[in-house]
Amino acid sequence: MKRRDFIKGAGAGAVLAGAAATPLVQAAPQFKWKMVTTWPKNFPGMGTGANHLAKLIEEMSGGRIEVKVYGAGELVPAFEIFDAVSRGTAEMGHGASYYWKGKSEAAQFFAAVPFGMTAQEMNAWLYHGGGMALWEEVYKPFGLIPTAAINTGVQMGGWFNKEINSVADLKGLKMRIPGLGGEVLQRLGGTPVNLPGGEIYQALQSGNIDAVEWVGPYNDLAFGLHKAAKFYYYPGWHEPGTVLECFINEKAFKALPKDLQTIVLTACKAANMDGLSEFTARNNEALHTLVTRHKVQLKKFPDDVLRQLKVTSDVVVAEIAAKDPVSKKVYESFVKFRDQVVAWHDVSERAFLNARAGG
Amino acid sequence: MKRRDFIKGAGAGAVLAGAAATPLVQAAPQFKWKMVTTWPKNFPGMGTGANHLAKLIEEMSGGRIEVKVYGAGELVPAFEIFDAVSRGTAEMGHGASYYWKGKSEAAQFFAAVPFGMTAQEMNAWLYHGGGMALWEEVYKPFGLIPTAAINTGVQMGGWFNKEINSVADLKGLKMRIPGLGGEVLQRLGGTPVNLPGGEIYQALQSGNIDAVEWVGPYNDLAFGLHKAAKFYYYPGWHEPGTVLECFINEKAFKALPKDLQTIVLTACKAANMDGLSEFTARNNEALHTLVTRHKVQLKKFPDDVLRQLKVTSDVVVAEIAAKDPVSKKVYESFVKFRDQVVAWHDVSERAFLNARAGG
Repeated sequence: MKRRDFIKGAGAGAVLAGAAATPLVQAAPQFKWKMVTTWPKNFPGMGTGANHLAKLIEEMSGGRIEVKVYGAGELVPAFEIFDAVSRGTAEMGHGASYYWKGKSEAAQFFAAVPFGMTAQEMNAWLYHGGGMALWEEVYKPFGLIPTAAINTGVQMGGWFNKEINSVADLKGLKMRIPGLGGEVLQRLGGTPVNLPGGEIYQALQSGNIDAVEWVGPYNDLAFGLHKAAKFYYYPGWHEPGTVLECFINEKAFKALPKDLQTIVLTACKAANMDGLSEFTARNNEALHTLVTRHKVQLKKFPDDVLRQLKVTSDVVVAEIAAKDPVSKKVYESFVKFRDQVVAWHDVSERAFLNARAGG
Repeated sequence: MKRRDFIKGAGAGAVLAGAAATPLVQAAPQFKWKMVTTWPKNFPGMGTGANHLAKLIEEMSGGRIEVKVYGAGELVPAFEIFDAVSRGTAEMGHGASYYWKGKSEAAQFFAAVPFGMTAQEMNAWLYHGGGMALWEEVYKPFGLIPTAAINTGVQMGGWFNKEINSVADLKGLKMRIPGLGGEVLQRLGGTPVNLPGGEIYQALQSGNIDAVEWVGPYNDLAFGLHKAAKFYYYPGWHEPGTVLECFINEKAFKALPKDLQTIVLTACKAANMDGLSEFTARNNEALHTLVTRHKVQLKKFPDDVLRQLKVTSDVVVAEIAAKDPVSKKVYESFVKFRDQVVAWHDVSERAFLNARAGG
């Protein structure tokens, strides 16, 4: 039984002793909000996550807030949602902060950093390590309040038609890999290619590109990428725990009474938990399907390739810090937290996972 | 800035345009609930987590629900909270499900299982792998609705005054280690000892016992255990991602209007996210303090010891399944999900953590 069904079931069968005292439950919405997203409508994990978040806010508010979700391009194009929410065309936006590096370089630290932090570590930094306050500072000039609203967990290294046996094999590699990961590949002699989602499959199958990173087994299986490539490489060094965000127009937020403000922020936090759990469970199932049914060949990047990718990643990420004082401040907080949590997870998460795997 | 302060700040400075339409915000509570806990009042992480959860429910409900938190023994003794909430003496209980194995053996699967699942895996199983529905089935006969409300993450192996160099060193080991972990130790010739919290430190320091597992760096540092033992062993094979719970009296829950039902369940899910994040951040800081300031010696259990602990753990856990049909059903779901998620995390979380650590 899904949690959502459970809630419904419990509500339907309940003796609503308090109902008479809560007339607002049946009232017309006082706040009609729009949520614009960077995802195609109902895109698995991301788009559906945005839908669930909207529904959760509506349910907790007893219908006082209505949140209508728009897929990419329905109200504004995907990469214009930041501006749209900033100017109040919509009250909420659902995307990923690395899309907004043109607004602020520092924004990239709140989505995914090559060899950065896992989902659990990112959430610890955000909620209890000073990260949220920094993110708020970065979005404040745009009149936006950020929240973490989903996490994909560690992504996959990507689909390859060329084997990677050494660092030299990255030279000349044409790969669909955006953002900081693409920058790292370029420094090592590869050619990062940006392609719209709709052209990726064909480019990989035709040999126009050698490799593609997309998300992880859940999304990759749905996309059919296993039919266009020989090898499925791991780990996703470039996106170890990608935070998807829900940002809110500050004026719209402040116009809410306090209980609804807390409801909106708490719904995002619960959605963050739910989204990571969903990705973990669905990736788990999809990988099983890919390996057992589609006979996909899993391959680990060689250790020396990973070491070089890490060295280059650290250089690329440090360069962001040099761009402006806010980026420097965020970088320093991020790296300090990461380096310390690495030491903790070396004796906890990592040590346990290795012990469970047999040594 | 803490999230809580942020919420307060935003509320205080806000133009409450919707306030006139939400008179309930200032109304007297319609539901006065009690939350009884197994923790000493304000116990770091657990007790404070229960306090935060109560506050979150109050804030989201605009004061319609009031939740008063009681420390262990204040209203009922720690290990009587299950019965107290079952019979309606209190509406909520905050504890850990392995305390209730006397009520149902299957309850143990929803807290911590030796060589079981990490926090991220447990949450995936609970929210998107069928785990919650099973937990609901297990608590249903007691008129209780379970929720996951915090996760400690991987715990530590414990504080030892005797070095563990081989499986033979477990023989005769007197260790404070309750539950399934203690049962595993006993099978390997050790003597698990149960001691009340207040007697642990003295027993370890005086040499009456050789070792103690408590929680992790955050709680262990506060407890001063580093002053009573030589070695701090890892990983916590016996508790790889302990779920702390908040269960609710079913009748009290059903008496809530639907919006408040969703608020209560969502608050628990957000608290689960917040609690794991807090434990990760605080353990991180506390380990740093233990190692740099108190010069604590970290030691990893030898690989062959961990392998034997795993073999014995699997036997002990499988025996629970044989006790009754519900336990069998829960065991089968748990083990199936674990085995499959191990395969996924081998190429994601584990592979990334190892790559980041350099090989």
